[in-house]
Amino acid sequence: MDHAGRLSRLRSGLDENEFDSLLVTHLPNVHYLCGFTGSAAALLVSDRGSILFTDGRYRTQAKEEVSGASIVIAGKSPAMAAAEWLGARRRGSSPLTMGVEMESLTAGMRSRLQAVLKGKTRLRSAPPLIERARMVKDAAEIRCIRRAVKLGASLFGIARKTIRPGVSEVEVAAAMEYAARCGGAEGMSFGTILASGKRSAIVHGRASGARIPRRGFVVCDFGVILTRYCSDRTRTVHVGRPSEEARQLYEAVLEAQQAAIAVVRPGVTAGEVDGAARGVLQKRKLTRYFTHSTGHGLGLEIHEAPRLAYGQFQKLEPGMVITIEPGAYIPGKWGVRIEDVVVVTPSGCEVLMPTDKELVII
Amino acid sequence: MDHAGRLSRLRSGLDENEFDSLLVTHLPNVHYLCGFTGSAAALLVSDRGSILFTDGRYRTQAKEEVSGASIVIAGKSPAMAAAEWLGARRRGSSPLTMGVEMESLTAGMRSRLQAVLKGKTRLRSAPPLIERARMVKDAAEIRCIRRAVKLGASLFGIARKTIRPGVSEVEVAAAMEYAARCGGAEGMSFGTILASGKRSAIVHGRASGARIPRRGFVVCDFGVILTRYCSDRTRTVHVGRPSEEARQLYEAVLEAQQAAIAVVRPGVTAGEVDGAARGVLQKRKLTRYFTHSTGHGLGLEIHEAPRLAYGQFQKLEPGMVITIEPGAYIPGKWGVRIEDVVVVTPSGCEVLMPTDKELVII
Repeated sequence: MDHAGRLSRLRSGLDENEFDSLLVTHLPNVHYLCGFTGSAAALLVSDRGSILFTDGRYRTQAKEEVSGASIVIAGKSPAMAAAEWLGARRRGSSPLTMGVEMESLTAGMRSRLQAVLKGKTRLRSAPPLIERARMVKDAAEIRCIRRAVKLGASLFGIARKTIRPGVSEVEVAAAMEYAARCGGAEGMSFGTILASGKRSAIVHGRASGARIPRRGFVVCDFGVILTRYCSDRTRTVHVGRPSEEARQLYEAVLEAQQAAIAVVRPGVTAGEVDGAARGVLQKRKLTRYFTHSTGHGLGLEIHEAPRLAYGQFQKLEPGMVITIEPGAYIPGKWGVRIEDVVVVTPSGCEVLMPTDKELVII
Repeated sequence: MDHAGRLSRLRSGLDENEFDSLLVTHLPNVHYLCGFTGSAAALLVSDRGSILFTDGRYRTQAKEEVSGASIVIAGKSPAMAAAEWLGARRRGSSPLTMGVEMESLTAGMRSRLQAVLKGKTRLRSAPPLIERARMVKDAAEIRCIRRAVKLGASLFGIARKTIRPGVSEVEVAAAMEYAARCGGAEGMSFGTILASGKRSAIVHGRASGARIPRRGFVVCDFGVILTRYCSDRTRTVHVGRPSEEARQLYEAVLEAQQAAIAVVRPGVTAGEVDGAARGVLQKRKLTRYFTHSTGHGLGLEIHEAPRLAYGQFQKLEPGMVITIEPGAYIPGKWGVRIEDVVVVTPSGCEVLMPTDKELVII
């Protein structure tokens, strides 16, 4: 990964925003910028270079992983170590400005940093420079996501083989997760959703001990983490013969998903993609059952910018990787969701690991 | 669970500390106090009662789970909704004091809360009242932990059957995690550690693609989450015939663990338990290879108070549940760790799911 390039572009952004330095504490951002994957880290970025602070547990790992930054092994919390380092090396009399990531720093840590840096360095909320950079993936990142989506997609085959009336949801999830692990996944990108029968109406229906009924939908929403990048995919199957009403619901959601995919191209806003899906469901009088947004960016995190929702004016750009996942959920009855990961290309988009998405009947 | 009692004791604690209210944002604390398990929540506790704020996704779930508190479904972030609710209902002219959990609240959220409550309510860092209460488990919690440890302990049987030279670490972990899921676990309490050969010297050696060598230690550190409570256990096995040196290292760590368990009883400090383990390793000149603390509390979280480390003066009390897990790691060579969960009893402690801990040779 091009850590040096990412750090250099970030430093330009800091200059433009009149920050002397930035203390990066959000771990996926630290990883993005210098490659470190440990659980205790703070990356201090300034025009004098970048320094990763971590603790003794990660001495060997930091040496192996980090590029573009020097390494300081600290005996205390990495963010505090960074502040003390900065305080000790402070020259001149006018206070400097250090950007902090207000949504990853705890209020307690901010107070402690302020106490250490008092009079020497002002803390200021940093704009989401790294989040904005991370929205557009480079070729190496897209390769990682492609591999993750490929492994993730293969789990649906396990689900199809395992889903049977009487089997518990969690047994199906366990089989999928086992295959993911054997396929090299570091873990799942979120708790596997396997929601059968009436539970399919619950948007976040994590696999439970509930047994799959003889007839009804099963929403399977699952993703893996492979070489740090996430996949995300939803397929909804029907156990037993679907009623005409069930078929119609499935077709409506599929049409909404296809309509949203069809509008994805550079220059279109995130809100317009959401509108395309919502428009289809509106015609079928299903809008009020579509209770979440149409999708989200994904990469090092399962949920990243942009958010594909009403009123989101972020324009799509080539290299953005997003999910398209409309759904419709009739409380107490049933629900359907269909989701793919797509990469925005110069002329439109590419669906990763596409399938025909006809309703699978088990 | 006795949510009403927990909330009532917390309210007394707030009075003593001169807080008018407390905004609970650390999700395990919210769960502890009112039973809610959703991922978006803030619990406002005051002498006028307790209110759980969550969003529309959790309408049904909140009704099913919450006791001891009323429920408000908000269209925005739960903490902000709580602040606005408080601001709108504020009577009188002197500002009130609301406690906040500085280590779970982000710096950004604290600023937004301050803006909403300006002039009406002061935010003040709350003492760790809930963390202190959570240290001592009640009978219902100990039952949950006992069940979690029982399921967790059974995974070592899978590990023993699966660990063979040439098998990858991650395959062993996958088999254990599959069994955990089939046994009803909501998930693992942390990424399964399976560190073989030289990797056994890495304290946090998550299961990797590395193949188990023909001869050497394999450290297996694993835990499940069952009905929300965590288990944690480490066993170290030896593949192939152990050298005398390997046997001696194992015996030293086992003796250290037994020495620490032997001193656990009410009134002893967390630091004294750590000292007991460290003393044994010191006699064998192994102290510098024991690079972490002797243990930690566990319950709703895998790491809770107290911390069993040098200089920790917290006295043990009946009902505390802690891990005892000394280890020794020779960099580049090998490592051993042995861990059990123990419950502090009025006269000493009970090891959950005890085994004889002779070195297992595979």
